Amino acid sequence: MSTYDSNFTTAEYLERVARTRSAMDAAGLQAIFVTDPSNMSWLTGYDGWSFYVHQGVILTLTGEPIWWGRAMDAQGARRTVFMENPDNIRGYDDTFVQNPEKHPMKELAGLLAEHGLERATIGVEMDNYYYTAAAHATLVAALPHAVLHDATGLVNWQRGVKSPQEIEYMRRAARIVEAMHARILDLAEPGLRKNDLIAEIYATGIKGADGHWGDYPAIVPMAPSGLDATAPHLTWDDRPMKKGEATFFEIAGAHKRYQCPQSRTLFLGKVPQKFQDAEAAVLDAIAAGLEQAKPGNQAQDIANAFNATLNKAGFEKDSRCGYAIGISYPPDWGERTISFRRGDTTVLQSGMTFHFMPALWLDDGGLEITEPILITDSGYECLCKTPRELSVKT
Amino acid sequence: MSTYDSNFTTAEYLERVARTRSAMDAAGLQAIFVTDPSNMSWLTGYDGWSFYVHQGVILTLTGEPIWWGRAMDAQGARRTVFMENPDNIRGYDDTFVQNPEKHPMKELAGLLAEHGLERATIGVEMDNYYYTAAAHATLVAALPHAVLHDATGLVNWQRGVKSPQEIEYMRRAARIVEAMHARILDLAEPGLRKNDLIAEIYATGIKGADGHWGDYPAIVPMAPSGLDATAPHLTWDDRPMKKGEATFFEIAGAHKRYQCPQSRTLFLGKVPQKFQDAEAAVLDAIAAGLEQAKPGNQAQDIANAFNATLNKAGFEKDSRCGYAIGISYPPDWGERTISFRRGDTTVLQSGMTFHFMPALWLDDGGLEITEPILITDSGYECLCKTPRELSVKT
Repeated sequence: MSTYDSNFTTAEYLERVARTRSAMDAAGLQAIFVTDPSNMSWLTGYDGWSFYVHQGVILTLTGEPIWWGRAMDAQGARRTVFMENPDNIRGYDDTFVQNPEKHPMKELAGLLAEHGLERATIGVEMDNYYYTAAAHATLVAALPHAVLHDATGLVNWQRGVKSPQEIEYMRRAARIVEAMHARILDLAEPGLRKNDLIAEIYATGIKGADGHWGDYPAIVPMAPSGLDATAPHLTWDDRPMKKGEATFFEIAGAHKRYQCPQSRTLFLGKVPQKFQDAEAAVLDAIAAGLEQAKPGNQAQDIANAFNATLNKAGFEKDSRCGYAIGISYPPDWGERTISFRRGDTTVLQSGMTFHFMPALWLDDGGLEITEPILITDSGYECLCKTPRELSVKT
Repeated sequence: MSTYDSNFTTAEYLERVARTRSAMDAAGLQAIFVTDPSNMSWLTGYDGWSFYVHQGVILTLTGEPIWWGRAMDAQGARRTVFMENPDNIRGYDDTFVQNPEKHPMKELAGLLAEHGLERATIGVEMDNYYYTAAAHATLVAALPHAVLHDATGLVNWQRGVKSPQEIEYMRRAARIVEAMHARILDLAEPGLRKNDLIAEIYATGIKGADGHWGDYPAIVPMAPSGLDATAPHLTWDDRPMKKGEATFFEIAGAHKRYQCPQSRTLFLGKVPQKFQDAEAAVLDAIAAGLEQAKPGNQAQDIANAFNATLNKAGFEKDSRCGYAIGISYPPDWGERTISFRRGDTTVLQSGMTFHFMPALWLDDGGLEITEPILITDSGYECLCKTPRELSVKT
């Protein structure tokens, strides 16, 4: 019943629902309650910045999914979801919003009971941002005869292999992040206030590229300079860029909620030897990692090859060097499933998309040169054509 | 030990800590574990987009707060928090990140035990986005002798009355949102792609105003047109603006994480009578609500006066018409404490700041004309000077 131009065909949504039901069945679940906004959107098409209140999608083993949320957001659901039956969009009263006296999960329990689920085994996303400890406690208390199982990641894992339409959206987002990096190179110079540069990065990203509009990235631009770049997740202020400093730009292009993150590092002035060495080591290690990026290999193969090459050059990285990407909402543009790190034995498949993210945070600066990639039938494809190098403006 | 220019004096942080400890004491809590990024920042100065992994601040009844999070984010903590003792910044190993095999809350339990809290009564923010059901379950299991109490909102409530420095930051954010609305009026016209307008709104907001830089708002711009504006939380796409349509712009200026939201509605073309009537009703109702905005009155007094006037004019609004604002991080720019609605008997005090948000979502469009306000010693002050009217471009 979407009145928007739907981003996907109903057939594609139904295929996703079927895939998810197989996983539910294998896990012995009669229903799931999905609160991750990315999962809600992937399953139903729902879009809107309404995840600051309790909401979710109920999926049982038959019939349409049910969107449930704040009454005023039911309007947004009517405009974006694929479901035909208006009864499958259910809003709760506004007095439940941020009101310590009454929790909306009590309402949800009534809806689940109405669907015959009061004694069911129901999957809930125990470790999702939008499923709080209080939400769970309220639901457990209100459904004493149901069994609530942890189904964190159950839907996320179904999202790993992308459809052709999803890959098309990822490619559009890739064009956008390329344009953002090009704009940075055009404008950055000593004396430029960091926030003025970020303003241009945002404007470029949202204007879009190749005729395709830019959506909001699930993480804001991170762009620390100099010593601040030893810390990976600082954002920006108005201190001007300086000669002799490196700045990394960890940014994403986004289109229809699909995220294509890519990082580059810009040095203003003459690059010190240590930074040149780090760049050479990272580029070699990226090449070694990418050689392992092919169907049939494991996620850890990329990390192990990357780390072995990096260590040989005398550098170390103790954090994961990549993760799955796709559709996402704040606060994370990752899919929260596969990580490129030792021990992750997930087998790579054609159609999976990752942010190969071999960032180095040194003791006196940061170096991020990263690649969003698509696993193809025979190997990999870098989604972006941004030159793979430390950018330098002297 | 902040190496940033600190946003507040250490004395101000210590005063906040003391205020929070009084509330802890009154609630019988020996410690709190705070995961709301706004509370973490307000208590310690911590800033960074790291809330997509588990992290928090531990506050006991004596000594400095303790920042706890991912090891790589400890670097960002070292650069932003006021605490002097390096032992009070504690990072956990990266293998705990988004790894279903091991949950970082187990590490946290060890840290709490190290501080003698294994049998303590500890407050946790049960209904915060960043305190998941799994986080709570893991902590409960790992601390079998501790008592975990719900302390949702305990810190948020301490934040209600703003300090002079906080009010200064809110005023700067107010200048920024004024500039954003002025830019919209300059640029909006039939045929302009919505995303191109949003790009300019972002750029204006982040460039800042009056020499003060713009930070990222805790919610992205919401700017639906026409029938889409019957749904409050849709964002944007590339459909062009059209003659005969209203678009509301629910946006915020932000400075040093302080948020000043304000909404305006723009009509392109000749305004239909119904919209004119709605505007007149809302403006009267706003005036009636604002008359009640003074120290000693209750939050509901504003809502009741607003609703009574609105209803007399034949319009209805069934959702709250305002909420407390201040420092914030995604996904919500509200403080999640006081709401302007019937039944909220919180007494207004000088120094409190609110978004008086009397939005009307009609069956064929939306009308948002809203005011961020400061409660003063004798009444209220509108933080913004944006003309209070339906904007029209013919």
